Amino acid sequence: MGRLLIVGSVAFDAIETPFGKTDKILGGAAPFIALAASKFNVESAIVSVVGDDFPQEYLDLLSDNDVDISAINIVQGGKTFFWRGRYHNDLNSRDTLETQLNVLADFNPIVPDQYKDAEVLMLGNLNPSVQLSVISQMEKKPKLTVLDTMNFWMDNALDELLEVIAKVDVITINDEEARQLSGEYSLVKAAAKIHAMGPKYIVIKKGEHGALLFQGEEIFFAPALPLKEVFDPTGAGDTFAGGFTGYLTKTQDYSFENMKKAVVQGSNLASFNVEKFGTERLQNLDTMTIYRRLEQFKKLTQFDIELS
Amino acid sequence: MGRLLIVGSVAFDAIETPFGKTDKILGGAAPFIALAASKFNVESAIVSVVGDDFPQEYLDLLSDNDVDISAINIVQGGKTFFWRGRYHNDLNSRDTLETQLNVLADFNPIVPDQYKDAEVLMLGNLNPSVQLSVISQMEKKPKLTVLDTMNFWMDNALDELLEVIAKVDVITINDEEARQLSGEYSLVKAAAKIHAMGPKYIVIKKGEHGALLFQGEEIFFAPALPLKEVFDPTGAGDTFAGGFTGYLTKTQDYSFENMKKAVVQGSNLASFNVEKFGTERLQNLDTMTIYRRLEQFKKLTQFDIELS
Repeated sequence: MGRLLIVGSVAFDAIETPFGKTDKILGGAAPFIALAASKFNVESAIVSVVGDDFPQEYLDLLSDNDVDISAINIVQGGKTFFWRGRYHNDLNSRDTLETQLNVLADFNPIVPDQYKDAEVLMLGNLNPSVQLSVISQMEKKPKLTVLDTMNFWMDNALDELLEVIAKVDVITINDEEARQLSGEYSLVKAAAKIHAMGPKYIVIKKGEHGALLFQGEEIFFAPALPLKEVFDPTGAGDTFAGGFTGYLTKTQDYSFENMKKAVVQGSNLASFNVEKFGTERLQNLDTMTIYRRLEQFKKLTQFDIELS
Repeated sequence: MGRLLIVGSVAFDAIETPFGKTDKILGGAAPFIALAASKFNVESAIVSVVGDDFPQEYLDLLSDNDVDISAINIVQGGKTFFWRGRYHNDLNSRDTLETQLNVLADFNPIVPDQYKDAEVLMLGNLNPSVQLSVISQMEKKPKLTVLDTMNFWMDNALDELLEVIAKVDVITINDEEARQLSGEYSLVKAAAKIHAMGPKYIVIKKGEHGALLFQGEEIFFAPALPLKEVFDPTGAGDTFAGGFTGYLTKTQDYSFENMKKAVVQGSNLASFNVEKFGTERLQNLDTMTIYRRLEQFKKLTQFDIELS
């Protein structure tokens, strides 16, 4: 059992989908990652920042799931990062209606002493300069460093982002971002180019079309579970990252074979996350329910084949 | 070992992709289906029509692969169906530049006597009235009838198409067509509605994102093999259908378990087909090469998972 250090935003989200809308609810990459990882009973801590408008109940929710919140800096007089968005009818695309960076604009991450030798470091989607700062504060190189990022940083902070990419073991990005980062349309070629930038493993997330894991010439594919309803996709990628790193932190086996399982675990948790608004489904998700759906994943993809 | 009856167009295609263009080459649903099915050494026959402009070498190619071509009607003084299209840069969409129905406009299919009790009937994408005529000519209900169709018939001949759909065991359509036919965005819901129209099994093809097989609540997913280059997607769906029905005709096991394998076999052959123009890759594809890629498919998707 290792320890997982999570760096990422902690936020308010206000979400509109074809099925309804929310007021400000708990959002940001770090809570999704931490709640997903908590399903594997790992020790984890979040490095983040919020304003003093951030409700104690959200902090308690994280603590209650054994997430160390001591490195979530609460800025007195500050306001928490806020994102408002609206999903289109197919839920595959969305418009950002409002972004208030607030305290995140001046976020200066401080890694707590007891996590400076964490086995796994999960860099949630955030300014690459923040990610670099966290990497440099680690006293021991983590066994595994996983990076999530997005097209915004490719557009606005590419040099720093490339610096981060050169230092990580795994990068998780979506298919469009992989194409943008590599300049290659073929995801096989894109992965090869991104591999050359540093990461040994490339995870390309394709939303409802599943996720690909690349290591050199090796490829593994995990589908997304076909669902009757997708209610709210917010946080699906972060939940995937939390399941992925949570499983690896628990098992401490960073081989390609075990990483395949981690991809399935991440996809499995993400399939729950989209069933309710925000983190609601993750909050109420027991082990037996997770296990049953893992069995569904297995049935969905496993086959025997012989030459005929 | 059963026999496979294939109904479908036999055509000239002229194709433009970002990688090159062809003059008139062998195209149409039936040749792709038959060449793919021939990899399983099944007895098969094509019911179709061409003009007297159709080259003997294309007919020989089919014969040489043990496809019975006696029910391909050669209309003297007629011209063969011709399609010209241009693929966009991402190869996921295309424009039809020219369609000449020619002899296909008056196609009156005649099922040869020795195939009126074929075990498997593959209805390639074609006018539903032609498909209905073939179904009605069968003296014995086939063990398995598989229908391929497209949005054009949903737009222009929906009533007849629904009549066909009510009579078949398996329908294969792409994701957009499944949505159009069912009025449901979720593919799980779409499959349930299409199931209620008649077919016991629904195959939803998602191109580069793989294929889903539905039977009631059961779902199986086969990915498309991630490829460095897709050269020409023409005929990928027909090749899938040919591999699918060829495998089932050979094994004569129409269970869900065996149909999973058939989906993988179809996906495997389709992954070859897109590597060259038209049927070129299928023409030169040996058993060992097919087998090796099946092993790749297995590695791509198979995993062990335990509850952690």
